[in-house]
Amino acid sequence: MQNTFEAKSTNNQLQAINAALSDGAFVEVQDMLRSLPPCDVALLLESSHSRNRTEIWQLIEPELYSDVLEELSEDVRNGIIRQMLPERIADALEEMDTDDLVETLSSLPEAVSQDLLASMDEQDRHRAEQGLSYGEETAGFIMNTDTVTLRPEITVEVFLRYLRLKGNIPENTDTFYVVDRDDTLIGGVALTKLVTAAPDTKVNTLIKNSEAIPATMPESEVASLFERYDWLSAPVVNEDNHLVGRITIDDVVDIIREDAEHSMMSMAGLDDEEDTFAPVIQSTQRRTIWLGVNLFTALMAAAVSDLFEATLNQLAVLAILNTIVPSMGGVAGNQTLTLVIRGMALGHVSSNNAKWLISKELAIGFLNGVIWSILIASVIAIWKQDLMLGAVIAFAMLINMIAAGLAGATLPMIMKKLRIDPALAGSVILTTITDVVGIFAFLGTATWLLI
Amino acid sequence: MQNTFEAKSTNNQLQAINAALSDGAFVEVQDMLRSLPPCDVALLLESSHSRNRTEIWQLIEPELYSDVLEELSEDVRNGIIRQMLPERIADALEEMDTDDLVETLSSLPEAVSQDLLASMDEQDRHRAEQGLSYGEETAGFIMNTDTVTLRPEITVEVFLRYLRLKGNIPENTDTFYVVDRDDTLIGGVALTKLVTAAPDTKVNTLIKNSEAIPATMPESEVASLFERYDWLSAPVVNEDNHLVGRITIDDVVDIIREDAEHSMMSMAGLDDEEDTFAPVIQSTQRRTIWLGVNLFTALMAAAVSDLFEATLNQLAVLAILNTIVPSMGGVAGNQTLTLVIRGMALGHVSSNNAKWLISKELAIGFLNGVIWSILIASVIAIWKQDLMLGAVIAFAMLINMIAAGLAGATLPMIMKKLRIDPALAGSVILTTITDVVGIFAFLGTATWLLI
Repeated sequence: MQNTFEAKSTNNQLQAINAALSDGAFVEVQDMLRSLPPCDVALLLESSHSRNRTEIWQLIEPELYSDVLEELSEDVRNGIIRQMLPERIADALEEMDTDDLVETLSSLPEAVSQDLLASMDEQDRHRAEQGLSYGEETAGFIMNTDTVTLRPEITVEVFLRYLRLKGNIPENTDTFYVVDRDDTLIGGVALTKLVTAAPDTKVNTLIKNSEAIPATMPESEVASLFERYDWLSAPVVNEDNHLVGRITIDDVVDIIREDAEHSMMSMAGLDDEEDTFAPVIQSTQRRTIWLGVNLFTALMAAAVSDLFEATLNQLAVLAILNTIVPSMGGVAGNQTLTLVIRGMALGHVSSNNAKWLISKELAIGFLNGVIWSILIASVIAIWKQDLMLGAVIAFAMLINMIAAGLAGATLPMIMKKLRIDPALAGSVILTTITDVVGIFAFLGTATWLLI
Repeated sequence: MQNTFEAKSTNNQLQAINAALSDGAFVEVQDMLRSLPPCDVALLLESSHSRNRTEIWQLIEPELYSDVLEELSEDVRNGIIRQMLPERIADALEEMDTDDLVETLSSLPEAVSQDLLASMDEQDRHRAEQGLSYGEETAGFIMNTDTVTLRPEITVEVFLRYLRLKGNIPENTDTFYVVDRDDTLIGGVALTKLVTAAPDTKVNTLIKNSEAIPATMPESEVASLFERYDWLSAPVVNEDNHLVGRITIDDVVDIIREDAEHSMMSMAGLDDEEDTFAPVIQSTQRRTIWLGVNLFTALMAAAVSDLFEATLNQLAVLAILNTIVPSMGGVAGNQTLTLVIRGMALGHVSSNNAKWLISKELAIGFLNGVIWSILIASVIAIWKQDLMLGAVIAFAMLINMIAAGLAGATLPMIMKKLRIDPALAGSVILTTITDVVGIFAFLGTATWLLI
């Protein structure tokens, strides 16, 4: 009856489906797809070549459309919806949970989503419009509206009888919300408390004074609250403290992953939702801007070198060694930058400790500068048989390591104040600084001492 | 009675505590700490200067030690435990949940943890040793042992009466586990099903055929299962399918964040658990290895340039432009690398689609190469008034962009086969490749055509 989970099984199923697809065994594929849970069908679509996705989609039973769409990442979902018939889209949307419905609608072109909204029934349109009104990446946008509420004066016995009559409870419900006559939230009662309490207990004595989330709170703040307080769900209220929905941990998990990945993807100049298997042209467009920014900074560094053309003309060895100092500064600065960006995301870095953090990073830059200056001076003195050249590169290295520590620690703080995402632009600006400082320090000192 | 959550409040509290600390108002600080939930005390410790941590720790009530230690990151926790009296540590450990107890013990020096184990009572020692026996980063290591079990033949009414007698249910319980006489897992019954079922229903009719997690499964696989199937908790079984514990979503959330952060931190050569406020010497040591690796690769790139010393001697302009091609290759290659590493982590990239992915990245490299070659050729032709020089740099750029796409896509796949973490070493190897190819292509072509 019961089996331990085979980790590799999904991968094998996907492989089998791919094989069947390329053999044209469509009926077989249809059977296989029917036996997979929606999340695995979504994984299959996401792992497939963009061309094959349409083919696979047509083999999925239409009743499963909404479940599969809910599980897909934005990029892939939009690609599929673009090829669906409008009636099919409307059918699929009406079966979705509110949060997925709202997210899907908002990611579609305005004209399409307006048409879809118009074709929905009153109730679905209302819940969609409410979510959309709070704007993307807010608590109101990601909440579900399937809350079960109760009145403070009823007893545990009465409520449990009501639940048995109701017959089912929405997925992932661990808490019911106590509200008064006009839906003002009074508090939450945990299901585990209800089943352990004496039947004649009034529910208002079981209320846990849990804080409510305002519908306008940004989703990343919601995610940190869930993470910090180990919540499974939390109520969402509007500005009048009326209960409007609830957020559950399964949706927050996606936000936590996206937030954590955001820095990594941004630092490489990639979009968070970038689809690994998007068509070539689309991927090229998205990445090309970042390359353009980098070309500009590389040209700036070249322009700095250009100032020292006369020096380079006299000593070709400087040209050979010119990349070492900027490269070390770039690596050291990016270490600091990454650490500070993560510290800010986790809420560890604030104005209280900023000053201390900067002086700490300066000290690390100095120490690492001393260590690697001594090493590089020895290497160059031996390799190029030139003690003075070794001293010049060592001095430039020390200067650049300190600059890297200072820039890596202060840049994210400054950018946060200017409301620029440090993960997106921090790395480029930092590299520009360490390139310029490194080249100036190396070629400048060389011009002064060696020529 | 009920207030919406003030996002900034924690930050303000921390600021107030810091101010009180530096004024020496210790009694005040003690009062403030008493009013904070353990997770906020942990956040305060993590955000504090390593010197202040001891001071704050001494002001926390000893009864709260275990709760606060549970919430701390490994680095900070170990720093604090090192300064605690052995009896205090033992007291704190005995009150911990099994997963935190096991994690804490395993992160302490062997001699210390052996002493602590010896001083524990039979039951605590048993649950600790069981967890430790599965080894770090496995399901058995992160599980809790506070499962509530029931027999298949009893009725819902009997079980609910049992729960009321028991009086409390472990935190985050959404499912009870049905086991036979020798603890073999039969399946799980959701609490929501129990409260909606008729009282005379036999529990075995409510069993959801949920898969069990083998205790030896790696924690990152556990995390992807939770993420994919939206579980709140899952049972853990040993090799005989006997129930040994359960894993809950709040612990998995930490693993998901760590896994997602792992790539970003590793790519910058940082330790995942690196403490932003660790002492300078400790941080310098940890980061210095990475700088050493980078210095080695920078010297390799310099050695390649060195092969073209004669060329550089004749044309200083080549020295000025020598960094542009490697830099563009590095950025393009890192974009591909980051995308493929993330795709592998999400389970999207496998042997099924590897070939296609490589050809896609080659195509993107070619396209971006063409775009930026044309641009750089024009810039150089105008800036340096030299058409031929523009053509040389354009050709080198095209070659390097294609090499970057190829290396970025294949490196993580090769490294995964060799069981090397691509996030840790991928970026250095990639940059070495794009530096060497870029310099060879640029200076080599220049030597051939311009000299």
